[in-house]
Amino acid sequence: MTTLAEEVARTFGSPAVMIDLDQVERNIARLQAACDAAGLSNRPHIKTHKSPILARMQQEAGARGLTCQTLGEAEVMAEAGLSDILISYNLVGPHKRARLARFLERWPLTVSADHPAVVAGLGEAAASARHPLDVVVECDTGRGRAGVATAAEAVALARMIADTPGLRFAGLLLYPPEDAMAETQAFLDTVRAGLAEQGLEARIVSTGGTPNLANLGAIKGVTEHRAGTCIFNDRMMLACGAATLADCALDVVATVVSRATPERGILDAGSKTLTSDPGGGLDGYGLIREVPQARIHRFAEEHGFLDLSACPEALPVGTVVRVVPNHVCVVVNMVDRLVTTRGGRITGEIPVAARGLTG
Amino acid sequence: MTTLAEEVARTFGSPAVMIDLDQVERNIARLQAACDAAGLSNRPHIKTHKSPILARMQQEAGARGLTCQTLGEAEVMAEAGLSDILISYNLVGPHKRARLARFLERWPLTVSADHPAVVAGLGEAAASARHPLDVVVECDTGRGRAGVATAAEAVALARMIADTPGLRFAGLLLYPPEDAMAETQAFLDTVRAGLAEQGLEARIVSTGGTPNLANLGAIKGVTEHRAGTCIFNDRMMLACGAATLADCALDVVATVVSRATPERGILDAGSKTLTSDPGGGLDGYGLIREVPQARIHRFAEEHGFLDLSACPEALPVGTVVRVVPNHVCVVVNMVDRLVTTRGGRITGEIPVAARGLTG
Repeated sequence: MTTLAEEVARTFGSPAVMIDLDQVERNIARLQAACDAAGLSNRPHIKTHKSPILARMQQEAGARGLTCQTLGEAEVMAEAGLSDILISYNLVGPHKRARLARFLERWPLTVSADHPAVVAGLGEAAASARHPLDVVVECDTGRGRAGVATAAEAVALARMIADTPGLRFAGLLLYPPEDAMAETQAFLDTVRAGLAEQGLEARIVSTGGTPNLANLGAIKGVTEHRAGTCIFNDRMMLACGAATLADCALDVVATVVSRATPERGILDAGSKTLTSDPGGGLDGYGLIREVPQARIHRFAEEHGFLDLSACPEALPVGTVVRVVPNHVCVVVNMVDRLVTTRGGRITGEIPVAARGLTG
Repeated sequence: MTTLAEEVARTFGSPAVMIDLDQVERNIARLQAACDAAGLSNRPHIKTHKSPILARMQQEAGARGLTCQTLGEAEVMAEAGLSDILISYNLVGPHKRARLARFLERWPLTVSADHPAVVAGLGEAAASARHPLDVVVECDTGRGRAGVATAAEAVALARMIADTPGLRFAGLLLYPPEDAMAETQAFLDTVRAGLAEQGLEARIVSTGGTPNLANLGAIKGVTEHRAGTCIFNDRMMLACGAATLADCALDVVATVVSRATPERGILDAGSKTLTSDPGGGLDGYGLIREVPQARIHRFAEEHGFLDLSACPEALPVGTVVRVVPNHVCVVVNMVDRLVTTRGGRITGEIPVAARGLTG
């Protein structure tokens, strides 16, 4: 009997990346239901799938808008007819400003900013555009990534946005650590009080992250949530309890190509397929569904080093396996197409239309 | 004054990947001279650049053939008119067999194999092809990756290849660890004696790796060398002494997009640009040429986390920098095009024609 993975490898070659559209639909529905139950708008993050086809499935299931991480992603989504786009990233530099101005000639947009220099650039891009540019202030409440570090800076930046021609202050972008709900609430309350003193209001208060789906509703005043990974899930989501193996809708199909000794072998998915993403400190680089005791412990570019000491009889040369990757978002970005399946049969391919558009 | 990096970011957007063609030519010439001096054929590995244009530059400088890691790479190179291709990888499975048979209708090819099951598949693909398939036996002399583990297996596999219709035994593929010259010599001598007993001869004895350029000529009986990374070089090559900073011909152009505090900032090159490749245990993920004391210590997909505690005054929002990545081969595979420069000026773009062709 031929397995689905063997059928995919035979039809599209190995390695390949496949998604189970039935499970994708269940994951989309579950995210929507969770947002609905918490009374929040669902603004899924498309950086995970980079596909207008999947973004449309999310909108048809009830998502109100979508989140992009780059202007390139937003351009692809808007060209495909998707609307209500938020870019959760500082757009900086003359190339971005020129593209942003062109974007605003055709479509409205919301972007985030965390610094006066960023706001000044956005104002330049939006000054004479057809559509005004909505700007949310990115706030750091513990992750130490981007975002203003204090409530006072958030209020000052909101004031600057509101005072900049072409820009509209739209609200606040949060990405709270999963264990920082109380701190984030306190930060948010302080910012909102400061905004009120300025006669400003945060129409959007946006939180993010698939692991934070467990915290939906915990922060008062939030209006929407941005989750990306949960459309597919991965080994990181398994590790943090945000998903079960059955929820994982994307597999890397790979083939055992070498078995030099009983204790070790080589998979044809290496760092150019599974990526070296450590998944926040996981053991190895992927979960082999058929033989979970096999470890992918190291990479060359097209070599996944298999430690088979726990299963020396398994995985002879030619075996085709399904691997749940550590981090699904970066794996999707390695391929131009996702093979789609339903009910255990291949149904086609979906282009990763915004692949590689990191700027 | 506008820097070259600023000019690249302004013209192509940020992040971008740029190469200095003058330095690329010097690197190509140096590899060729090293092989010539050692009396070895130069068979550069194109997995680093994935570009027929750069492969042709290597052949015009004197390279005798080229090395690919995947059939997809070989298809792109052959379609572009490049010849004498060796694939240093086991081709396994029905999809590869069918493509290999089609390839052999049009072009000759050399591939490696390390297992009877692989040789059987190659025989199936080559049985009725127009061109015979040359096969080299991959031997493991200490790296623990692919390759037969013993000299006896190498000889037995050579015998099987010679006895398989459509296949020709062509020689041996080695990738010795840099500190295993004596062990590799002993392994090679034993294999060659065994081959002689069988009436077989290794026409090709191929070694590999940029760090092994320091060992060219150390192993008697070697006929050619496969080096990839040295066309561009990277932080790994700096770390092992195979290159100086001046030899690094590829930079990631990136922009500082966030400066939440004096001690930290965010670069717009994250794991989807620089990749999470740890470069064999380097500190951080890239060397910022302008401010080497700044550390890229962590990633999100479009966020390079900057530790600026050693240089809090440096790198305000909007600064464009050049980053030497940990591992250049995987970075090239993230982008569809390389921006080319000469003498500090932009000259155009080169498509990464075999990008993503990992099978």
